[in-house]
Amino acid sequence: MATPIIFDTDPGVDDAQAIAIALAHPDIELLGLTTTFGNVEVETATHNALLLSELAGQSIPVAQGAAAPLVKPKAPAPAHIHGADGLGNIDLPAVTGKPQPVSAAQFIVDTVNARPGEVTLVAVGPLGNLAAALQLDPGIVDRVRRVVIMGGSIREGGNVTPVAEANLYNDPHAGARVLTAGWPLTLVGLDATHRCVLDPEAMERIAAAQGELGRVLAESYTFYKDFYRQALGINGCCPHDSCSLAWLMKPELFTTQRGHLNVVTEGPAMGQTVFAPEGRPFITEQWSTTPLAEVCLNADGPAVIDWIVETLGG
Amino acid sequence: MATPIIFDTDPGVDDAQAIAIALAHPDIELLGLTTTFGNVEVETATHNALLLSELAGQSIPVAQGAAAPLVKPKAPAPAHIHGADGLGNIDLPAVTGKPQPVSAAQFIVDTVNARPGEVTLVAVGPLGNLAAALQLDPGIVDRVRRVVIMGGSIREGGNVTPVAEANLYNDPHAGARVLTAGWPLTLVGLDATHRCVLDPEAMERIAAAQGELGRVLAESYTFYKDFYRQALGINGCCPHDSCSLAWLMKPELFTTQRGHLNVVTEGPAMGQTVFAPEGRPFITEQWSTTPLAEVCLNADGPAVIDWIVETLGG
Ligand SMILES: [Ca+2]
Ligand SMILES: [Ca+2]
Repeated sequence: MATPIIFDTDPGVDDAQAIAIALAHPDIELLGLTTTFGNVEVETATHNALLLSELAGQSIPVAQGAAAPLVKPKAPAPAHIHGADGLGNIDLPAVTGKPQPVSAAQFIVDTVNARPGEVTLVAVGPLGNLAAALQLDPGIVDRVRRVVIMGGSIREGGNVTPVAEANLYNDPHAGARVLTAGWPLTLVGLDATHRCVLDPEAMERIAAAQGELGRVLAESYTFYKDFYRQALGINGCCPHDSCSLAWLMKPELFTTQRGHLNVVTEGPAMGQTVFAPEGRPFITEQWSTTPLAEVCLNADGPAVIDWIVETLGG
Repeated sequence: MATPIIFDTDPGVDDAQAIAIALAHPDIELLGLTTTFGNVEVETATHNALLLSELAGQSIPVAQGAAAPLVKPKAPAPAHIHGADGLGNIDLPAVTGKPQPVSAAQFIVDTVNARPGEVTLVAVGPLGNLAAALQLDPGIVDRVRRVVIMGGSIREGGNVTPVAEANLYNDPHAGARVLTAGWPLTLVGLDATHRCVLDPEAMERIAAAQGELGRVLAESYTFYKDFYRQALGINGCCPHDSCSLAWLMKPELFTTQRGHLNVVTEGPAMGQTVFAPEGRPFITEQWSTTPLAEVCLNADGPAVIDWIVETLGG
């Protein structure tokens, strides 16, 4: 039986590939896409979510959510990484569909409560929609099947600051709420995603197999790749968001550890995820009072890439 | 020509071994020991600094300094790690010497200014004495030869919190002042010291060669080792403080990187060292405005242990 998920996203180049996987994989039932600011403004995220579904020939509910962080001031979207359109500043077809009449948070609450114990939330952007859903109905912590989050970094260092990963940095207060909510949670952060590098050959195979959707993925990848070459000196990209779905379908490709998570909300370490492994003693209880979560500390990068290419490569 | 150093310390078991090295090594000229609270109360640190010098048959100036952090409230000393006496609760001989009539900070300022460009400060406790010296005379940043600090953690995680190392955690405001002062600085943190494990056999060789000082080192090591076995499950100890002297004498045993350091002074990441490698772009300038420092990211652990045993093993 396919795994029913809601995919919370800010597409975004690597989001686009992950959405394509969620649309294509036979063992994933994509119940809806919920959108947030992050890589792009939220209206652009919504547009892209609708567009990518239509390019795949599917009609998936899209519910728009957070336009800004919960507490901290909004910063401009990083157009130098994802393009002003979120997909590398390429020619994009027109969109015909419309978003849902309810907010992302309401859509999450309604969908989870309609199928208690069944729905997995996969979140690959700033975590404002999940925080807002918890505000509307804190009881969903007991009714989701699992929450899988692409975000954070334990030992790997950050990507927007030396210690903070972008999704947590962009809304650290939402991140703190969501990571310490006490629902069954798996964090797929940079410790795993930086092990995975999608090279141009793999991308060509995906492009060839996915028709018009493939063209959009490939052209946006080219733009995104330039950023990786300049910033990190690698020929390829880390498919961060796809890794969340790789964990969901192939958890055996990841090394995980249980422990307590916290998120720093203020100061120079803002957005940092702090991980206290289960049972490891520290000088105060501060770090081991949050509920236990599962954190990815490593991944079999080549095997994750193989899974992505198998899923999208025809 | 021997390297003149002031050794700033809170002995403490691993401090005691490092002091023994500073006393024994023919290429180190030990100008003085300055003491701080940390592993023990400052009076105990002063007592132990005098004691260890006397056991080695040397008369080294000892100047007492910080009894408490600059800003944060003082916490009790960790007697479960170093013993109430700082040396594993063992029988200790009487001390005959007395500390200097000036504070540690004044001793540092006077000594550095008397030999401009010559003196290396090696600090292996909380950094209050160096911060106080900078307060008395900020000009010493241009007159020290180098500052070598055992403290902090970049990728390794912390030892008193998931992200903070004890020396920086115990006085994060002093740490921030000292690590960003703009003097030539090398940080030898847990990324290096956790690679080095001193096992009981190595300790026996040291004990046999060092007479009464060796007995004190060996007995205190046994107490300290129990802590390591319980907390980390290893048979041996990390000789953290000795690693600072190993870097000074054998820098080729360490992997270093240049970059910008910051210290988190508040919140759940308090005491964390934040490292931005030189030239690595981040989204704001916040992390690359501090002066450049050199940070150890790895060490050849067995070679460091060999150097310690050669130095103290007769
Ligand atoms: Ca994303
Ligand atoms: Ca020490």
